[in-house]
Order: sequence, then structure tokens, then C-alpha cells
Amino acid sequence: MEAYFDNSATTRPFDEVIEYMTYVNREAYGNPSSIHTKGIEAEKLIKTAREVIAGSIGVSSGEIYFTSGGTESNNLAIRGYLAANPRNGKHIITTRIEHPAVLEVYKHLAENGYSTDFIGVDSNGIINLQELADKIREDTALISVIFVNNEVGSVQPVEEIVKIKNSINPNAVIFVDAVQAYGKIKILPGQLGIDMMSMSSHKIHGPKGTGALYVKKQTRIKPIIFGGGQESLIRSGTENVPGICGFGLAAKMITEKIEQNREHVERLKQLFIDGLTDIKDDFRIISPDNGSPYILNISFANVKAEVLVHHLEEKGIFASTGSACSSRKRIQSHVLEAMSVEQCYMEGSVRFSFSSLNTEEEVEYVVEAIKSILPRIQIKRGGRRVRR
Amino acid sequence: MEAYFDNSATTRPFDEVIEYMTYVNREAYGNPSSIHTKGIEAEKLIKTAREVIAGSIGVSSGEIYFTSGGTESNNLAIRGYLAANPRNGKHIITTRIEHPAVLEVYKHLAENGYSTDFIGVDSNGIINLQELADKIREDTALISVIFVNNEVGSVQPVEEIVKIKNSINPNAVIFVDAVQAYGKIKILPGQLGIDMMSMSSHKIHGPKGTGALYVKKQTRIKPIIFGGGQESLIRSGTENVPGICGFGLAAKMITEKIEQNREHVERLKQLFIDGLTDIKDDFRIISPDNGSPYILNISFANVKAEVLVHHLEEKGIFASTGSACSSRKRIQSHVLEAMSVEQCYMEGSVRFSFSSLNTEEEVEYVVEAIKSILPRIQIKRGGRRVRR
Repeated sequence: MEAYFDNSATTRPFDEVIEYMTYVNREAYGNPSSIHTKGIEAEKLIKTAREVIAGSIGVSSGEIYFTSGGTESNNLAIRGYLAANPRNGKHIITTRIEHPAVLEVYKHLAENGYSTDFIGVDSNGIINLQELADKIREDTALISVIFVNNEVGSVQPVEEIVKIKNSINPNAVIFVDAVQAYGKIKILPGQLGIDMMSMSSHKIHGPKGTGALYVKKQTRIKPIIFGGGQESLIRSGTENVPGICGFGLAAKMITEKIEQNREHVERLKQLFIDGLTDIKDDFRIISPDNGSPYILNISFANVKAEVLVHHLEEKGIFASTGSACSSRKRIQSHVLEAMSVEQCYMEGSVRFSFSSLNTEEEVEYVVEAIKSILPRIQIKRGGRRVRR
Repeated sequence: MEAYFDNSATTRPFDEVIEYMTYVNREAYGNPSSIHTKGIEAEKLIKTAREVIAGSIGVSSGEIYFTSGGTESNNLAIRGYLAANPRNGKHIITTRIEHPAVLEVYKHLAENGYSTDFIGVDSNGIINLQELADKIREDTALISVIFVNNEVGSVQPVEEIVKIKNSINPNAVIFVDAVQAYGKIKILPGQLGIDMMSMSSHKIHGPKGTGALYVKKQTRIKPIIFGGGQESLIRSGTENVPGICGFGLAAKMITEKIEQNREHVERLKQLFIDGLTDIKDDFRIISPDNGSPYILNISFANVKAEVLVHHLEEKGIFASTGSACSSRKRIQSHVLEAMSVEQCYMEGSVRFSFSSLNTEEEVEYVVEAIKSILPRIQIKRGGRRVRR
């Protein structure tokens, strides 16, 4: 049996998406910039995908820009906005639990004349709203918030964040990294007061190598990649037509079943937790109760997460230690640190992330696998394995 | 009959490439950053593609970075190098016939403190080497040259350019935009003295949305997109695994037959020109005799290129007016202007660009089509159509 529980790292593209991309590669291979029908055909397909994605978050299609993925969308939003609005201030705020695609951008900006503030979170991974209010200044240009955290699944109160921002400095813009939220939570940026929002294709069973950025019509940004002026001058480079088409179809499929999928993964997550009840002294759930049902971060006491992950994969089960993007680096998770997770639970944290394609059988299988593996890999204080 | 002669704008992916990408999407969908076998499998596939591309230009695989395409590669090379080497000077040189993905980068840099020089070309589209020598200064940090021009196919004497640079300022680096050259001309950057070189997948029957940048081991660059640190910290963002795999296979296939393909398209180009001999007063070949055989830019007197292109597409023939990337803009080609093409030939320039997939039958078909269309669309001085 194979059970893939690493859907927050990346997902398997839907079969329909793969088939559609094959069709586009074979038949609609024109360059959208070409004036002949092969080009126009490709342009029309992009238009359709743009409309689908715009529709899925209730915005107009002129507010959607395609990029090469979530990381580029984050970079474009933050740096593109600041470059286009140099007079709005040199102070920027974010949280301590952002994805590296935001944290590293802030680090870069800090080295280039921007003043940065990182808001802390509580043990549930929710940002301290008072701290946020205290930090917003007159020269705060932008606040960047990760909607659903990729490691633990905490969901930020975006609406409240926007209200606080508006009460103190309405000129500051709100950028939301929605890579782990899009297609899983119904998001209406217009209603929430979000100015910019990033989305990724490969987290929702679309292809890798494509993503999108929503930018509110009134919000001006500058490109970060220069060239032929594609994407209304905002993102140059020949459009990844099959990628965009695959993304569009995945967005359509996932949006249509967003409630149904949510109920499904909620059931899976509960089944997972319930299954572990009889070994409840051996682990702690790191993910907050009211977090995204798509992410279950569990820390096993006296276990090295890496060892558990490798034992699981021998049984065909795939899960992550921390987030995929940083899991190759042997550093402590900045998210768990920000949540003040006790040291004894830092090393044993494993992320199981779900998708609509997972089944109850798979969850039962992983639960049994964990129970059979744990006794063999638990370490006694002093370094020896627990034998029991 | 359908005849696609717009291969410099983009190519149809090889069937083998499409099939391979389908396989990767279905089976090897892991995130290369994940520590489990699904991740390692994806990472291995990228490694193989990297080795193929490195091998195709005789460099080591550690010198190849994957990007989202040629435009990003150009941006990364030029801006990444300048950011990493701020003490090497603030003067940069390029040619007057670059692709917008270089010209717009230079424009951006000119607005940000860099001094720029644009070297002119002769009527064959070859840069003036004396002018280049005169412009190189002590504070020249970088010289950017398009190997094969995308509109007319002129091939720059890169080896001579490097020699001139080395004799005046060996510290300046040479970046080559090889998007239209890679896979068509055998290029060995090590032998030529090229420091950085960009390549694109979708110009060689690989998928859109992926490209590569060669950076010589000793040459340091900084990223232009920040995040999880993929591609040895140079290009963050989850790797487009199926895209990279498709690119790798296309590179393998095209490199294996590089000589054979060249002979084939040389034959097609000659057949094309020969076929038009009996109407030789009606057109002028803009492409230089010794240019790339893959590109044939012909200007028809008293014809609007757009009109000819649309008449051709009615017969299933696809060609471009100018380059695809700028063909939607109604501005005069900067390349033809730099080559001092006479005004009467500016408007009638059509680019036919070949690939190994084109056939002699297709060429015969397009030649006959042109001959039958021309009399109907030629404009007499004064604006009336020529009737004959």
C-alpha cells in the first residue's frame, strides 16, 4: 500500500489536469504573443484559466497575474509593491512564522534600507494582535501574513488583522501568502480587505512551475523580471501555457468541491488522531485545534522525526519533517520555536498533510504503522532505545 | 495542410517529451526538497536533466541552474552578477539588437545607477567590433551579447568579442543570450570564454515554463528570487520537475542530432529562397547569408507583413511579423532599425523560422502560397492594391 501524506509539500496532479496539459502541449503549442491563430488559441486558453482563478476568489480576471509559482508570487507582491510605491514608507511588518519565500524577501529588504518587524505568535501559532497594533507605524508600507501556516496549519485572523491595520494606518497594504490556504478555504480578498494574495498550482493538484498573484485593481506594483512585457507588463517571459491551463483546471476542480473536500479531510484528521488515542502519552499534537484540517503536525516524544519518516517510507507512507522547503536543512523549525514548543518535542515533529485523494484506509494504515514503528525507535534519556 | 514556421517564437514539444512529462507528473510527483523517496526520486530526475544540459555544452552540472525560462535566465545572469559584484564597476555594454529580456533589464539598470552602452550593428546584423573595443572601460562590469538574433538570425562572433574584451578589460564578464542558439549551434562556453549563458526549453521542442542558466564556476551571482534556497541558493521555489525533465529530454534529443538537423534546415531554407527566385523583384532577404539557417527573415515590398501573415494562416501556415515577443506591439522593429533596413522594407518583414520537424513539402507549400497571395495584397504607391 502507498499512502502519500505530504500534500503540503506538493500534490500529485489530478489525472484530468495531466490529460489536459498533454492536449495543450500537443495541440495548443503556440506562443500567446504570436498574432496568428496558433498564438490566439494559446492566449484564449490562458484567458479561460485566468477567469477560473479570478472567479474562485471573487475578483476580476484583470487582477490575476500568472507567475512561475508561489515563491515568485510572494517576491513579486512584496518587492513589486515597494518598488512601485517608494513614498509609502520604508517600514514593513510580517510574522515570525512565514514561509522562507517571505522571510528571505524581508531579510533581503532589511539589507536594502527597509526597517522590518516580525510579530510573534502564541502556542497555537496565531499572531499577537496587540503586538501587531503596537508595531504599525505611519511609515508602515506593507504587512505580510501567511494565511495558513505550512508547518502547523494555524489560520491567521486575516479579517481582524485588516481591521487593526485600517484603524491605525489605512495606507499600508496587506499581502497574504495563501499558498496553503487557496483551494482549501473559501477566500474572498475583496470582502476581507486583502490587497494582494499569492496562490500556487502544485499545492492543489495542479502542475509545478506555475502560480498566480492577485493584485487589487487600485494597487500598483512593478515587475521584478523584465522583458517582453507579458502579463500586462507585470511578468515578462513566454507564458507557461500548459502549466497555466493545468493550474486553471485544478483550481476549477478543487473550488467546485471545496466544502466536500474539507469535510473529507476533517474526517481523516480526526480518524488519525482518534487512532492514536491509546498511545496518547507518546505524542503531542502541535497543530492547533482550530487550524487547517489539511495539516496535522504531531510531535512524538523521544523520537527523531527523520527516523520515523524513514521507517514510514519503508511501508510506503510519505510524510515530512517540518516543511519540505526547509526539511533538508538541519536547523530547528522557526515556526515551532515561535510557538514556544518545548525542546523535548522539537526533534520529533512530523507533518502529515492531507488531500481529497487520501482515503480512510490510508489513515488506518499509517496509524497502525506509527504504532508498530514507535517502540522500535524511541530513545531513552541517555541515548539508548526504549525496549518494551 | 498545416505548416508551422514560427519555431523561433515557440516549438511544438516532441511527443517523447510530452510522454515523459506525463510519466513524471503521474509517478514522480514528489517535492525534491522532501527527505523521503518520493522527494529523492524527483531530485534524481532533476540531476539527470542537469547532467544532460551540462554535457550538451561541455560544462559541469554544478554550473547549470534551472529557471522558469529564457527571460528569467537573462535577468538572473545580468542582475544577479551585478548584485554579487558591486565593486566591478557600474558600466555595462550590450548590442542594439538584443531581445527585450536583455534590453529591458538594461533600461531598468540605467534607471538604477548603471551607465549603459549599446553597440551598433552592420546591415548583416553583426556588431561593430571597433565600436565595442572603443566602449570597453576599466569600470565595465559586464557585456551582454545575443548569440543568434531572434528576428533575423545573425550570429555574433562571440570568440572575437571575448578576445577584444580580454585584451582591454579581462575582469569584465561576458553573458551570452543563447536562447535562439542553444541546440542549434554547438556551443562550448569554456572554449569560447563565455562566463554566463542562458538557454530556453520551449525553443528546442521542450515545454514552456523552464530554462537554464550556465554560470562559470568562478563567477559569483546572487539570486533575484528569494525563498527556500533551491538551486544551490540561486533560484528559490519548488522545482518544476516535469518541466525540467521535459527540457532535459528535449536537450538530449536535439543535441544528438544537432548536425543532422542543421543540414536539414539549411536545405529547407535554400529550397525556400530558391522557390521564390521567379518573384525576386518583390522581396528582399533581411537575414544575413551567413546567419542561422533556422531563421529566414524576408521583407516583401509594398506589403504589410501582418496582412501576409493573416493570409498565410488561412492556408494553415504560421509565421511571424518580427519577433513573437514584440509582435503584438505596433512599433517598428529595433533590430531592423539597427540594421538600417530601408523604410520601404520595414513594414513587410516576415520571419519564417524552421525546426527539424518541418518538411520539404511544407516549404513547397508555403512558397506557392506566398506567390498566390502576394499579387492580391501588394499596395501601389498611393495606397491602392496592385492588380495584375
